[in-house]
Amino acid sequence: MTQATLPEGITRQLAQYAARARYSLLPDHVQTEASRAWLNWMGCALGGCREPAVERAMATVAELGGGPQASIIGHALRTDVASAAFVNCIGSSVLGYDDAHLATVAHPSSPVCSALFAWSERNLVSGEDFLAAVALGIEVTCRLSNVLVLPPSKSHGGLYVTGLTAPIGVALAIGNLLRLDAQRMAWAIGIAASQGGGFRATQGTMTAHFRPGHAARSGVWAARLAANGFAGNEVALEADKGFVDVYSTGADLAHAVDGLGERHELLNNAYKPYPCGIVIHPTIDACLDLHRQFGQRVVPVRATLRVHPSAISLCGIREPATTLQSLNSLPHWAAAALVRGRAGVQEMLPACIVDPAVARLRSQIVLVADPLVGSDQADVEVALADGRSLQARVLVARGSKSRPMNDDDLDAKFGSQAGMVLPADRVKQLRALCRGTAALHHVGHEIAVVLA
Amino acid sequence: MTQATLPEGITRQLAQYAARARYSLLPDHVQTEASRAWLNWMGCALGGCREPAVERAMATVAELGGGPQASIIGHALRTDVASAAFVNCIGSSVLGYDDAHLATVAHPSSPVCSALFAWSERNLVSGEDFLAAVALGIEVTCRLSNVLVLPPSKSHGGLYVTGLTAPIGVALAIGNLLRLDAQRMAWAIGIAASQGGGFRATQGTMTAHFRPGHAARSGVWAARLAANGFAGNEVALEADKGFVDVYSTGADLAHAVDGLGERHELLNNAYKPYPCGIVIHPTIDACLDLHRQFGQRVVPVRATLRVHPSAISLCGIREPATTLQSLNSLPHWAAAALVRGRAGVQEMLPACIVDPAVARLRSQIVLVADPLVGSDQADVEVALADGRSLQARVLVARGSKSRPMNDDDLDAKFGSQAGMVLPADRVKQLRALCRGTAALHHVGHEIAVVLA
Repeated sequence: MTQATLPEGITRQLAQYAARARYSLLPDHVQTEASRAWLNWMGCALGGCREPAVERAMATVAELGGGPQASIIGHALRTDVASAAFVNCIGSSVLGYDDAHLATVAHPSSPVCSALFAWSERNLVSGEDFLAAVALGIEVTCRLSNVLVLPPSKSHGGLYVTGLTAPIGVALAIGNLLRLDAQRMAWAIGIAASQGGGFRATQGTMTAHFRPGHAARSGVWAARLAANGFAGNEVALEADKGFVDVYSTGADLAHAVDGLGERHELLNNAYKPYPCGIVIHPTIDACLDLHRQFGQRVVPVRATLRVHPSAISLCGIREPATTLQSLNSLPHWAAAALVRGRAGVQEMLPACIVDPAVARLRSQIVLVADPLVGSDQADVEVALADGRSLQARVLVARGSKSRPMNDDDLDAKFGSQAGMVLPADRVKQLRALCRGTAALHHVGHEIAVVLA
Repeated sequence: MTQATLPEGITRQLAQYAARARYSLLPDHVQTEASRAWLNWMGCALGGCREPAVERAMATVAELGGGPQASIIGHALRTDVASAAFVNCIGSSVLGYDDAHLATVAHPSSPVCSALFAWSERNLVSGEDFLAAVALGIEVTCRLSNVLVLPPSKSHGGLYVTGLTAPIGVALAIGNLLRLDAQRMAWAIGIAASQGGGFRATQGTMTAHFRPGHAARSGVWAARLAANGFAGNEVALEADKGFVDVYSTGADLAHAVDGLGERHELLNNAYKPYPCGIVIHPTIDACLDLHRQFGQRVVPVRATLRVHPSAISLCGIREPATTLQSLNSLPHWAAAALVRGRAGVQEMLPACIVDPAVARLRSQIVLVADPLVGSDQADVEVALADGRSLQARVLVARGSKSRPMNDDDLDAKFGSQAGMVLPADRVKQLRALCRGTAALHHVGHEIAVVLA
């Protein structure tokens, strides 16, 4: 069957786009953004690589994984491409510091870059091909997330959108490197979509980070299976009883393909300035503002947060007991930022969670869900021990589309995370390699050497 | 955390049950049924092992799979336990001949037995422990399928229930062999549930059989991850934004645990007498009855099938083009049974699909969906070339609960499938080993020797 005989629809359009995607077809600023996403991912993968979730996933891969095809970042173990993608993705997402597609709260880079980096260790992939695949995987993940989440769709709020859509983004990214034709791309979509799943009740546990990891390896398998002729439905996304039908109601399929190749959802993907749920970020901005106003010597005793309802529904954990729970605790981050004037990796650790000053204030945080507050906005009022009351309003959160992390911000973030694992000269070398990926001949090899 | 501190709910109840399940606690007839499910599975795994879907999955596993821990049935390749479970489960389900839990159309044995057999090759598992795990895995899969599918639940008819529930059944079965405590069982449930998914639009393609295969390996990983301390939500099934909340509406959680250990859903699992969707079976019974009445010499020219609506919604493919599509084609099987007086593996092959007599009659089949016809019933009226019209009504399909496949039926089915791959003496030897599994010391080893 040739491409022309694939049934019409979004599966075919995405499959054809994925088959044709090349670096040279991307505008400069999209090429640059793919490179920034990749740099940001590498920092996150290093920053999270010592976490217990990574160690435990690695123990499982040591037993069930395959041959030494790719590295587990920060560790000596080598395993098959899919298993390496799985573990490295858990590492890059476990601190909640990776990225977020603002409209859907999908986290596209972790599964996409984890899979592509592992793949590029095993296979010769040029820098340009690599970045084209990064852009493609993120683009497809974000667009399918839009289908499931954006109006008119009424999907269940408990579905974990990254778990549903990232397998497909990864599959097409790897499929592009495999130079699959459109028909095999369509099969890969169906196989990947069949592995989509997950639900938000896992938040605050290691299993929340299992799901992006699983998405990464699911996409690798889907592409390899399709390449080997494992056939599937060619309209899996739009079919009756297909992916979109089952996981949403009333969705607009056009979100998947409108302006494909011209309008880039990748540009709506934001790198997180703080290691926690993105819906918490505007509140942190406001609290850091306030802390600058009242200074280190004054004690905040109470605060009221007026936020978008999703900040509470997604990150409403009142009393986090662990680092992983702190990722989804709006009260914790408000308290930590107000008390310490910082919101970095230190503030997610147990020492900060049980810090008496932070814990005391955390118990005095009032949450107000206000649909009129935008998802990148927050309004915080703090009462101080000296009797004063101060207010801060954030209209556009740091890291959001109109106030993005600039290259210096990203470099600093990269340095703070990579520096947890690598000596300073290696951090610098690695950052230069990631920034200059477009010029590399064999991405996986050249970068793995510096990581080893 | 001890078992006592797990939150109350169905996750805890299933976790505790799984931690305590032992062969000696099962009534005799349940022990026997586990053994029958296992024998039936082994025949199916042999019968399907030469299918292209298996070959192509195997090629992928050869690249991405792990060390030589377990066999791929019918092939020389050995791979890691999870990958072997994956490929063997594709083999046992690809001909649609395995089994079906009648109330939910879940297919529990393929993922459960595939995972357990692979596991038992790598680890020393006694026959009694093996069969206890078979019973447990099937029980949990069927009970959770009841939660999602039975009233009052209104789950989406496009969800592939085996893909959602079998990962959990497999995880608890393997967890039982690992002797996980209740807390780790609860984590395993959460990790397995996070891998659930799949939709019915894949039917008629290889990807439909990917999904049970994926469920098998998902369960293996979940159990191994939980054993290694990879923690999860401890109320993943019943939580707000949890498994049941996300994949169903209004479900009754009691289906999961009512009479657990006393009432056995395993007994409502049926071995298929015909290699196709179970909702087609009563129609085949009726058509074979009719063929016996009118004989081989008379030509049937038209038929009207009055069936339960699910027979049409699940298996309504009018013109199958491939073996895999024939699995879900009610008109095909009605035509084949009426023309040939048989409904075996031969009747799903391309030669029968394009047989002019079968194809002609297939185009003259009228389907009538009648909610008053039970799902194990059918009413068929056939018009013959000699002008006669005959009618047959099936009130209880062969293979259903009140008319089950007896041991002779199962032996014959096993022989027909195993004989496609093994010489007669091996078939006999293997059948005896499977029937006598309770007495084996090291199931995987003793059986793999005969398969090799």
